[in-house]
Amino acid sequence: MGKTKIPYKTYLTEQEMPKEWYNVRADMKTNHRPLLNPQTREPARLEELEAVFSTECSKQELNDADAYIEIPEEVREFYKMYRPSPLVRAYCLERYLDTPARIYYKFEGNNTSGSHKLNSAIAQAYYAKRQGLKGLTTETGAGQWGTALSMACGYFGLDLTVYMVRCSYEQKPQRKTLMTTYGANVIPSPSDTTEVGKRMLREFPNNTSGSLGTAISEAVEVAVKSGGARKYALGSVLNQVMLHQSVIGIESKRAMEKIDEYPDIIIGCAGGGSNLGGLISEFMRDKLKGKANPYVIAVEPMSCPSLTKGVFAYDYCDTGRVTPLAMMYTLGSGFCPSPSHAGGLRYHGMSPILSQLYRDGYIDEARAVNQIDVFDAATRFARVEGILPAPESAHAIKAAIDEAVKCKESGESKTILFGLTGTGYFDLYAYEKFLNGTLSDAPPSEAELARSENAIPKF
Amino acid sequence: MGKTKIPYKTYLTEQEMPKEWYNVRADMKTNHRPLLNPQTREPARLEELEAVFSTECSKQELNDADAYIEIPEEVREFYKMYRPSPLVRAYCLERYLDTPARIYYKFEGNNTSGSHKLNSAIAQAYYAKRQGLKGLTTETGAGQWGTALSMACGYFGLDLTVYMVRCSYEQKPQRKTLMTTYGANVIPSPSDTTEVGKRMLREFPNNTSGSLGTAISEAVEVAVKSGGARKYALGSVLNQVMLHQSVIGIESKRAMEKIDEYPDIIIGCAGGGSNLGGLISEFMRDKLKGKANPYVIAVEPMSCPSLTKGVFAYDYCDTGRVTPLAMMYTLGSGFCPSPSHAGGLRYHGMSPILSQLYRDGYIDEARAVNQIDVFDAATRFARVEGILPAPESAHAIKAAIDEAVKCKESGESKTILFGLTGTGYFDLYAYEKFLNGTLSDAPPSEAELARSENAIPKF
Repeated sequence: MGKTKIPYKTYLTEQEMPKEWYNVRADMKTNHRPLLNPQTREPARLEELEAVFSTECSKQELNDADAYIEIPEEVREFYKMYRPSPLVRAYCLERYLDTPARIYYKFEGNNTSGSHKLNSAIAQAYYAKRQGLKGLTTETGAGQWGTALSMACGYFGLDLTVYMVRCSYEQKPQRKTLMTTYGANVIPSPSDTTEVGKRMLREFPNNTSGSLGTAISEAVEVAVKSGGARKYALGSVLNQVMLHQSVIGIESKRAMEKIDEYPDIIIGCAGGGSNLGGLISEFMRDKLKGKANPYVIAVEPMSCPSLTKGVFAYDYCDTGRVTPLAMMYTLGSGFCPSPSHAGGLRYHGMSPILSQLYRDGYIDEARAVNQIDVFDAATRFARVEGILPAPESAHAIKAAIDEAVKCKESGESKTILFGLTGTGYFDLYAYEKFLNGTLSDAPPSEAELARSENAIPKF
Repeated sequence: MGKTKIPYKTYLTEQEMPKEWYNVRADMKTNHRPLLNPQTREPARLEELEAVFSTECSKQELNDADAYIEIPEEVREFYKMYRPSPLVRAYCLERYLDTPARIYYKFEGNNTSGSHKLNSAIAQAYYAKRQGLKGLTTETGAGQWGTALSMACGYFGLDLTVYMVRCSYEQKPQRKTLMTTYGANVIPSPSDTTEVGKRMLREFPNNTSGSLGTAISEAVEVAVKSGGARKYALGSVLNQVMLHQSVIGIESKRAMEKIDEYPDIIIGCAGGGSNLGGLISEFMRDKLKGKANPYVIAVEPMSCPSLTKGVFAYDYCDTGRVTPLAMMYTLGSGFCPSPSHAGGLRYHGMSPILSQLYRDGYIDEARAVNQIDVFDAATRFARVEGILPAPESAHAIKAAIDEAVKCKESGESKTILFGLTGTGYFDLYAYEKFLNGTLSDAPPSEAELARSENAIPKF
């Protein structure tokens, strides 16, 4: 860069925005273990996936041959409404920490859904539209994914039914209103609109607060029983989601090239893996091909420590055990993080792609962090960098600050890149608990972990 | 632009960002009528303003000589964290309306305060810091300004006390939490921390829901009684605020120059005037100097129609009648819009600068719109352009859509620029009312308007 100061924010031009997603599976060293049909325990075939997902998404789910897949023009046009997202040089955070590290973050929160989830939502909605489907179904917990898919379906004129975990539906009426504004039909789960829901209501009449597992089962049931008019969409874990989210990492890499930078350390929060998988994309390609060796850190909550405390095994993707089995790091599909955990990233498993990359050492480190520390990092970040981060994103902030402090101690001027996946505007109840001192953290005991893992199917 | 398509979003580079604010007063044809001391009814002197505002802000308030005033480097550095804001070509809205008009909007919502208010907040906080003040005081109704000033004070390490209208404090706990996260001390008004507040609580024990007028009086009282340690800050109406907000219009004009465009029509919502005053800035300079003649529309709510139904007169800036008198369009300082009005822009008066420009015909039209139409426009905009607008901004959207539809009817390809001042993430209760059909509008009756105007002081 010579004498030119690196700007606070680096944007690609629209011409520089990616025209293809990167499919890391094509370059992975270890053969990817396939999804298994839960009945036959044979690899899930295209026809089986097509019963649930749109045809193109089903093909993408199985594609481990093509390293690059074209982003349809209609999706690229939508991307241009809220992308490219900025690559931000965190000058103010660097000054605050007095660190020689150069800290960058890719900020995905500048859209109404408030997170990176929109990158995959618009792709899944587009393929559904192109296939002539009437609509989609999905589930949502906190509401980020449901909002993103509502926006995408609203844009393409698809109908959308969102099964929203009932306790979240009642706690976050704003999220429901937001989805409704974009035309979605939001139903608290468990509901009496599905067989699964009715059974849950009948069997557990005193426990109707719901779970992500039940909501998934309801959404899948409606899609499967729609006679082909509707399919189901999911916002994380799946290979197709990692594919669509690769736009984050491709943009990050190109933006860093523009300012003559390359990360020494890449940090992403990891729940189901959609953000971290997207952020590393082409950086991971460099690593798999031996061209570069950035140190990759996956940050997860101590309350839901799938990589740091889970086992690498075939397991169900949902609590209701209706989905295919995936080979992944898992705490057991019955695992439920402590109710005191407010910071998202509550999934019991981890993207099979990321699980394999971690298993093979390409993700160098998984780090579990305490949520008090996470909110402390979030608050400090907000005051110096201006943006109120989502609690999920704040896991990455916590690790980035720790790495920058290490640089101060060692005098090293490392380049750190982390993913700022979204904003915390709908998570202020959790910030309030942090500020008034009532936030706590309750990692699972060894006994709880063992009990949950014992339920993982044996082969 | 030749064959190159205009991008969805045009950003200035950091080098192209403005280094000076534009002070329209220096170019205005009619001498600006000064603020008056409410006791003496003589023009307010610098020393009188300094009792309330920081010294530099007081000087800016009185400055009608300098057309350009340097933006301090520290403020420009902060601007770089969330600016330049994008100039967006609304391709999707154009397609949806099937209009030959070219629609652009300057989007100011990509920061945690959610609106353009931060542009002035950071300037007022900087001057307070430079003067060695300990902190600032302010009031907030809906919370946008309070949030912006909280972020600004958090950044510079100033303390901040925000008097928040009590009914809003109780309805919007998230706004309070957000301000607290940035370090502000938020007090519901009326409170027992001031003489004014105690008097209100004593005199009206059954009506403690508060008003902006009382909150202003409390904030001013604390500043004035702080022995010079703290000063008061205000987010609209004032000349200094129009000055700081000029960054919106200067950026807009430069971005339009980059794509070889110039607006035929400029549309801004108008409450106290901070957004419209900022948006027009250098375009108004062209107009005052006869270089161009964009048609300028100020859009206000039918429920609070200061330009379309008010009178041009000296009036108090607050309900409590402690502030100086300003020459402006006003509905009377006792005017209060109907409780059914959810869309912001509730101020009884209008920036003296904008009032004079409207009086002199440089603001070509003031248009009052119904809030049902406003929310209808907001919802349609959200579905096609992706962004959920603030209700305030949606007033401008409504007018922009109407102008674009006129272009369709006439076949004219006009260039329309409007200000998208912010996002509606904390206004979902109002969207919910719109969606469920319980939103209504209740413009004031002629009798109500006459009663309120009768209370304007006579000269």
